[in-house]
Amino acid sequence: MRNVTTENITDVFADYFGKDTDPRTREVLVAMARHIHDFAREVNLTHDEWRKGLSMLEHAGRITSPERNEFVLFSDVLGLSSLVDMMHSVPEATSSSVLGPFHVSNPPPLAIGGDMKHDFEGIVLLVEGQVRSTDGTPLAGAQLDIWQTAPNGLYSSQDPDQDIHSFHALMTTDDNGDFAFTTVKPVSYTVPTDGPVGELLDAAGRHPWRPSHLHYICSAEGHKSLVTEVFPDDDPYLDQDTVFGVRDDLVMSYAPRPASDFPDGMVLSGKVDEPFESVRFDLVLAPQD
Amino acid sequence: MRNVTTENITDVFADYFGKDTDPRTREVLVAMARHIHDFAREVNLTHDEWRKGLSMLEHAGRITSPERNEFVLFSDVLGLSSLVDMMHSVPEATSSSVLGPFHVSNPPPLAIGGDMKHDFEGIVLLVEGQVRSTDGTPLAGAQLDIWQTAPNGLYSSQDPDQDIHSFHALMTTDDNGDFAFTTVKPVSYTVPTDGPVGELLDAAGRHPWRPSHLHYICSAEGHKSLVTEVFPDDDPYLDQDTVFGVRDDLVMSYAPRPASDFPDGMVLSGKVDEPFESVRFDLVLAPQD
Repeated sequence: MRNVTTENITDVFADYFGKDTDPRTREVLVAMARHIHDFAREVNLTHDEWRKGLSMLEHAGRITSPERNEFVLFSDVLGLSSLVDMMHSVPEATSSSVLGPFHVSNPPPLAIGGDMKHDFEGIVLLVEGQVRSTDGTPLAGAQLDIWQTAPNGLYSSQDPDQDIHSFHALMTTDDNGDFAFTTVKPVSYTVPTDGPVGELLDAAGRHPWRPSHLHYICSAEGHKSLVTEVFPDDDPYLDQDTVFGVRDDLVMSYAPRPASDFPDGMVLSGKVDEPFESVRFDLVLAPQD
Repeated sequence: MRNVTTENITDVFADYFGKDTDPRTREVLVAMARHIHDFAREVNLTHDEWRKGLSMLEHAGRITSPERNEFVLFSDVLGLSSLVDMMHSVPEATSSSVLGPFHVSNPPPLAIGGDMKHDFEGIVLLVEGQVRSTDGTPLAGAQLDIWQTAPNGLYSSQDPDQDIHSFHALMTTDDNGDFAFTTVKPVSYTVPTDGPVGELLDAAGRHPWRPSHLHYICSAEGHKSLVTEVFPDDDPYLDQDTVFGVRDDLVMSYAPRPASDFPDGMVLSGKVDEPFESVRFDLVLAPQD
């Protein structure tokens, strides 16, 4: 097509594809180009706005490193990460939610009943639950990769004062699919705002806060892995998570309990002499196709 | 909104905006998010495809530098750069076309009748034209910033064997708005394919070629600046410019001429003793609003 116009440019783009192109690649790329073109036409995108968008991508490129991925953060605050998660959730299973950038490789194993709180300040939180399949079968030997913020709102990879494995653990469920550990309540925190994502949030008049949460990656033989987060029901940012991660079934209730209720068989059993909090959250995995 | 779903996520995104947000910022960002969400839903974007897109952006970030902007190149090969150009073209004026990444600052002045060919190989090309306003008034004193490839297909900034100002010039039109210079025919060339844009072109079964062209930035008092390119009508890539830059009114015809036709008043007058080629291309600028 010699005479490309504002109206035919998507067709010209589609015509450029080779005959042997992978059909899925073609489908995705043509749909992407069509939405980019429709967007530009719809808002009558100016050269200045186009340059602004490019300069934000360049800025993201300059500050992205193995420790910080500003492109993932753009995807998060634009809702794309959560949307892709939700589209591939299985209705009968626990909802998935964003992985985020703070997962670490090779988390240290933690036996059932173990403790992640160590000497950190805060009220002891007892977390208990069961991993099961969508048909109700308990999943023994399921792996639970758990991580969260320290009481200062920082993940270990953000905080030079924490060991890299602080508030990270890998737990294996027992014969009944059960797990249990102690920790402290995770706290609300902000996504990084010193890059172009912060600029976007500013321009939109949006805050950068996420409600507090516990992260889980749960995997079991014959089942799809589940990447998710669970949120306390009293967090002030539950209704406005800046990365759109909250689903109704991921909101859990913390119960205050007297010290005398603290169960046996935990690392902290016999050492808890003040009121603690407890929460129960089960994880339901979908079988593999 | 606590329970974000695949269906309400665009509304949630729009609801997050502050009340005092600039209305245009809001319009552009909400439309962008809506198209991103529609795209993901429409193709049922998988986690693997989402990660692939992010990794291509990360790759673009790693190789982008002041000398090479892979994000602009993505915009070019997806048709966005050309679309934004076309949307802001004035119908009665010469069409605009992509700037590209090879313009240099402070091009050397060249008097009317000057030569850009110097000792480079190739047939002499005589380029003549007039700059005028949309109402036909000749524009005296208009500035014409001109650049093109050397016969080896490389711009000066890509080629250590060329001076940075080789095949770059700044010409001022005479009292009749006329300009004239000699050069060699520019040649077809490929966009860089060693980055993620090359990967995208490969996946789409697309070639990386651009038809040969002369670049112009033309500016005159009281008129909108025009960034454009003009193309010879015999280039094999005219119908499939990989950056979508060709418009019918930017295609020009080269005429072969005997040496005896070479005009007086040019730097090369009296020095051309073989057949040459000539082309006439006028540039029409729109008045400022």
